[in-house]
Amino acid sequence: MMVKKKILFLTTGGTIASTPTGEGLAPGMNGSALAGYLNGMEGYEIRVQDILCLDSSNIQPEEWQLIAQHIYQERTGCDGIVITHGTDTMAYTASVLSFMLPGIEIPVVLTGSQLPIDQPLSDGLENLRLAMAMAGTGKAGVFVAFDRRVILGTRAVKTKTTGFDAFESVNWPLAATVDGGGLRLWESSIPTVPGPCQLKSDLCREVFLIKLTPGLDPEIFDVLLSMHYRGVVIEAFGAGGLHFIRRDLISKLHKAAQAGMSVVVCSQCLYERSDFSLYQAGQKALEQGVIQGYDMTTEAAVTKLMWILGQTRDPVQVREAFSHSLFGEVSL
Amino acid sequence: MMVKKKILFLTTGGTIASTPTGEGLAPGMNGSALAGYLNGMEGYEIRVQDILCLDSSNIQPEEWQLIAQHIYQERTGCDGIVITHGTDTMAYTASVLSFMLPGIEIPVVLTGSQLPIDQPLSDGLENLRLAMAMAGTGKAGVFVAFDRRVILGTRAVKTKTTGFDAFESVNWPLAATVDGGGLRLWESSIPTVPGPCQLKSDLCREVFLIKLTPGLDPEIFDVLLSMHYRGVVIEAFGAGGLHFIRRDLISKLHKAAQAGMSVVVCSQCLYERSDFSLYQAGQKALEQGVIQGYDMTTEAAVTKLMWILGQTRDPVQVREAFSHSLFGEVSL
Repeated sequence: MMVKKKILFLTTGGTIASTPTGEGLAPGMNGSALAGYLNGMEGYEIRVQDILCLDSSNIQPEEWQLIAQHIYQERTGCDGIVITHGTDTMAYTASVLSFMLPGIEIPVVLTGSQLPIDQPLSDGLENLRLAMAMAGTGKAGVFVAFDRRVILGTRAVKTKTTGFDAFESVNWPLAATVDGGGLRLWESSIPTVPGPCQLKSDLCREVFLIKLTPGLDPEIFDVLLSMHYRGVVIEAFGAGGLHFIRRDLISKLHKAAQAGMSVVVCSQCLYERSDFSLYQAGQKALEQGVIQGYDMTTEAAVTKLMWILGQTRDPVQVREAFSHSLFGEVSL
Repeated sequence: MMVKKKILFLTTGGTIASTPTGEGLAPGMNGSALAGYLNGMEGYEIRVQDILCLDSSNIQPEEWQLIAQHIYQERTGCDGIVITHGTDTMAYTASVLSFMLPGIEIPVVLTGSQLPIDQPLSDGLENLRLAMAMAGTGKAGVFVAFDRRVILGTRAVKTKTTGFDAFESVNWPLAATVDGGGLRLWESSIPTVPGPCQLKSDLCREVFLIKLTPGLDPEIFDVLLSMHYRGVVIEAFGAGGLHFIRRDLISKLHKAAQAGMSVVVCSQCLYERSDFSLYQAGQKALEQGVIQGYDMTTEAAVTKLMWILGQTRDPVQVREAFSHSLFGEVSL
């Protein structure tokens, strides 16, 4: 007799479970209804838990902690976990879960869709089946399964508002693909992190993201300091540029560092690596003690900073955490 | 005798003109040195003006105004204008020049490179030649010429930190391409705006860009109001999501509108269209009077808001300016 794969199916809402309301689409279907669409999945024993019912715009650090706790508690009773989630913030959730659950022993696969599963042309069923298949591989880690591709959780970015190919694996190869041979795992792109899994779900919410615009008034740094922000991620220009003539961002970086604020710099370009050592403007920033994000996505940089500042108040440890990759989020 | 195309060549600095310094690459070469690399351009009469010598991270509203003024004054004495510019903020400059010079009668073509022109593998010469060719077409408008492609100024985004194909034409077809047939103009993707050109270079600098992160504290809106910001562009989640549970961004949008602040909403997804009417969260935002950015790039949305707030203090006129396309920046 075939041993069935035990999959825990957690639902959190999102477009995949949405139905029309007077105010536009909003999540309405539960996990049993979603699972009811699955067919040809005889090899899987699926247990459903509805844990949230939200548009993912409303999934925030408290929900991340709730989801992480469920995964941590349930992981020993199943072979893999599938989580349906709105696409809008899925990349943030996938990144932060990767950090909150170091050493996770099973696959945790987020998926969702661009059209509700009950619509004839929906991508929901296909994505859900892919997520189940990935969850059944036993390959440990946090992933996003979408449009016949599986992406490392820390490398997913939503790049399209409506296209079914909404997610890209940014600066990193795909974790798995689908073709006539079924699901193909690309083992070399999936990091191995030794278990046992720990639940490290403390987060610092006082992290702010600044996407630079030309001429941005540096005073915003004084304001963020007065608002007690402990971390800032800067999406700088190009490979590592920020203005310092007339409006001197560099001196504010110095002030922020003096005040104990951790500043991580990355690029507002979607693709490729930032390197602040290349140009004069970037070098000046590095001299102030900013932390380089290199080829991290903004989603990974923001959630990693929220996470590490939740674990420690020691700037040396913060820098240390950014000096190596926790789950494939950065190439050094 | 062949009539030569008269090209005005304005230089502003950037990587194309950079040379190594003790602090990393910094602009050092002037326009004559750059033009010295050009060959096979016998049909062009090139007049050089060095107007700035900056890394484009330091090109800010004051420099935009200076560049616009030069273009406005010199446009009647030439067939086209080429501007070398750092790549980091080139997309912002190209967008804002499109707005500041309505009815421009000649091509204004920005270009630059990822490697300095004096390096053997540089893309600088090829890009400069393309820009000259585009400037010689007589096709009016502001463009970015890069890597064998010409992009409408309002649609350019720098998506790669180091790749030669650094710019993409986002949500809009290319204005021109290069192949064995030479430069091919794609007329249907180039809007026609009636002249004569006006110089409308007033800008409002009190515009802030917020790229949402999950759980962002809505208090930032109170702070921006107290700092006298007149405009905010929000890069929301997906097609149009923002959080309102526990941390209520929606009520802050209401407060901002009451205080006369103009808020433009677009997506943090690079590609495709945002539409806040699709989902409940977005609809709630629209009810507060925010202005939709639809398929505009963030670069175009920010510079359009800076520009229109520089022209008027009337919220009705601001909304009106966003309800139509000035130079191809939005599809309605």
